[in-house]
Amino acid sequence: MTDPLPTGATIGILGGGQLGRMLSVAAARLGLRTHIYEPGSNPPAADVAHAVTTAPYDDVAALTAFAHSVDLVTFEFENIPTEALDIIEAITPIHPNRRALGTSQDRLVEKEFLRSIGLTVAPFAEITDAASLDAAIATVGTPAILKTRRFGYDGKGQARLKSPDDATEALADMADAPAVLEGFVDFSIEISIIAARNPQGQIACYDPGQNVHREGILHTTTVPAKLPASLRTDAVLLAAKILNTLDYVGVMGVELFVTPQGLIVNEIAPRVHNSGHWTQNGCAVDQFEQHIRAIAGWPLGDGGRHSDVVMENLIGADVDKVPALAKEPNCAIHLYGKVETKPGRKMGHVNRIKN
Amino acid sequence: MTDPLPTGATIGILGGGQLGRMLSVAAARLGLRTHIYEPGSNPPAADVAHAVTTAPYDDVAALTAFAHSVDLVTFEFENIPTEALDIIEAITPIHPNRRALGTSQDRLVEKEFLRSIGLTVAPFAEITDAASLDAAIATVGTPAILKTRRFGYDGKGQARLKSPDDATEALADMADAPAVLEGFVDFSIEISIIAARNPQGQIACYDPGQNVHREGILHTTTVPAKLPASLRTDAVLLAAKILNTLDYVGVMGVELFVTPQGLIVNEIAPRVHNSGHWTQNGCAVDQFEQHIRAIAGWPLGDGGRHSDVVMENLIGADVDKVPALAKEPNCAIHLYGKVETKPGRKMGHVNRIKN
Repeated sequence: MTDPLPTGATIGILGGGQLGRMLSVAAARLGLRTHIYEPGSNPPAADVAHAVTTAPYDDVAALTAFAHSVDLVTFEFENIPTEALDIIEAITPIHPNRRALGTSQDRLVEKEFLRSIGLTVAPFAEITDAASLDAAIATVGTPAILKTRRFGYDGKGQARLKSPDDATEALADMADAPAVLEGFVDFSIEISIIAARNPQGQIACYDPGQNVHREGILHTTTVPAKLPASLRTDAVLLAAKILNTLDYVGVMGVELFVTPQGLIVNEIAPRVHNSGHWTQNGCAVDQFEQHIRAIAGWPLGDGGRHSDVVMENLIGADVDKVPALAKEPNCAIHLYGKVETKPGRKMGHVNRIKN
Repeated sequence: MTDPLPTGATIGILGGGQLGRMLSVAAARLGLRTHIYEPGSNPPAADVAHAVTTAPYDDVAALTAFAHSVDLVTFEFENIPTEALDIIEAITPIHPNRRALGTSQDRLVEKEFLRSIGLTVAPFAEITDAASLDAAIATVGTPAILKTRRFGYDGKGQARLKSPDDATEALADMADAPAVLEGFVDFSIEISIIAARNPQGQIACYDPGQNVHREGILHTTTVPAKLPASLRTDAVLLAAKILNTLDYVGVMGVELFVTPQGLIVNEIAPRVHNSGHWTQNGCAVDQFEQHIRAIAGWPLGDGGRHSDVVMENLIGADVDKVPALAKEPNCAIHLYGKVETKPGRKMGHVNRIKN
């Protein structure tokens, strides 16, 4: 157990996208500095960071210097090469820990972990070739989704099977990457719970948000979710079980399907999560500050909500709506500073405050 | 009339203290970058800025390069040397404008301006020597306060006169600086109103906050203030009159005394103001974003408040309370990243959310 990070200490962040950007602002609010490590030039987080290293994840010298320049390291995305983490961890602590990261980097490992601690996941099977896919279709059934085990996000690396006839095409979409077949879950809504744990073992959760996706990308999160109190309790308990089992330090996003049989865990993300952006305008301590508090060894915020919020992502050309949104009362705008608009690119979000 | 600043444009900020820091974060939220100009090294704003120039205000080359690197310039304090502003303004626009800045830089000019547009100020008189002070005491009376015309803040450059006997000592405190004698106002409370105006002439005000000072420094601001509706209206109308008369663009803080005869204007600050920090946790658009919106030509937030807030400054050793404050529910912490604690130094503030 170490002392809380003092004012002026520096947190290293792997990844300079919008999550790193908002983490950096939250760190500043607590008197802490950030150093961003990002291969791309002019990343969104650079605008609000104390220092930036622009280098690839296989640059041993850059990784070493980065690790020496900071007091601890965290990350904004889970697909960080293992070798880079090994170099950093020999020098300075990484939070959340490698076990949590390794678990979430691989859909198969993640599902097996969740099942091993007694949680419910969708039916699944490991896919290595056409034969294993045929066998999996027989047990998991169709419709189903074939997903790469690693490096998937926002609906990428996924193929739907409406019937067994789609097997060959779906497998081709995987381009020989190891995959998992997941059975469809008949759910009423998708929710997510943003949970945090600090090194002292304190756990805090925000109220679950109700998510709506469009074309595989989160569109809106509404808080509070339409959810019976018993399922709220279940969501908190299962999130706490995941965090405690992993000896987790930081914020985690847990996506859940609500079904007549209870909650099914869709996936976990060992980081701040898009479905937790509403906390910026609904809570005294938002998910970004909560993550910084956790990894810096501070007391956690209690997760209390002062306002109901609907978060809406601005994807691609949605950002053209900003002039109109700027005139809307009770609408908090959060742009990521990305100059080039691309289809499917997350350009920003708005939080509509509802009380 | 120019178009709104686009994503990726850069705002230059003169001054790298906590106000520049919080302006920088607000600019980032709107997709804009900031470039801080500050003589001191490692200023608070540098941790969250895209670029920083460390140079004095008489460095012509640095000022010129700074002005060329940004799309417009604003400032976080009013005591900027005129020559520096001349250099910058020859290259790029400065908001708020020079007239507003010049008015607020000189207590005598400010009071004469306010009186000229029909607003009530405390009785005052210009002081240049012992004879003018004696004459002023005869008309203004005692108790009174002698203040330097320029460069005063947080109670600095001020001397109290309980009786005419204190005249000699008070005048010595001014160290030959031009001064103003202000009569005491018998007020029930002090409030401030944070108002904004954009280039299109749109005006928006936040609800007035009620201020309590300790040792000449703001201690708390409570919103809503205990104030009849008619005085709320008066506060908004007088703020609008000041902004419109000055053709003002940006946020202004207006400090007001509440008396049985109505509102008396204490002073104006042509910038974001400590008594507006509560807006960070009470409003969808806080005073920092409001200032950026105004100077960037965006639509203003409407000033609506979703939560009641009590702001408390952390002055000097108050910052030692942070570990306890971090455990307090509904308490939002804002630290400025200042490593060295000094008596009277503003280290941060907290916003306690009350709904």
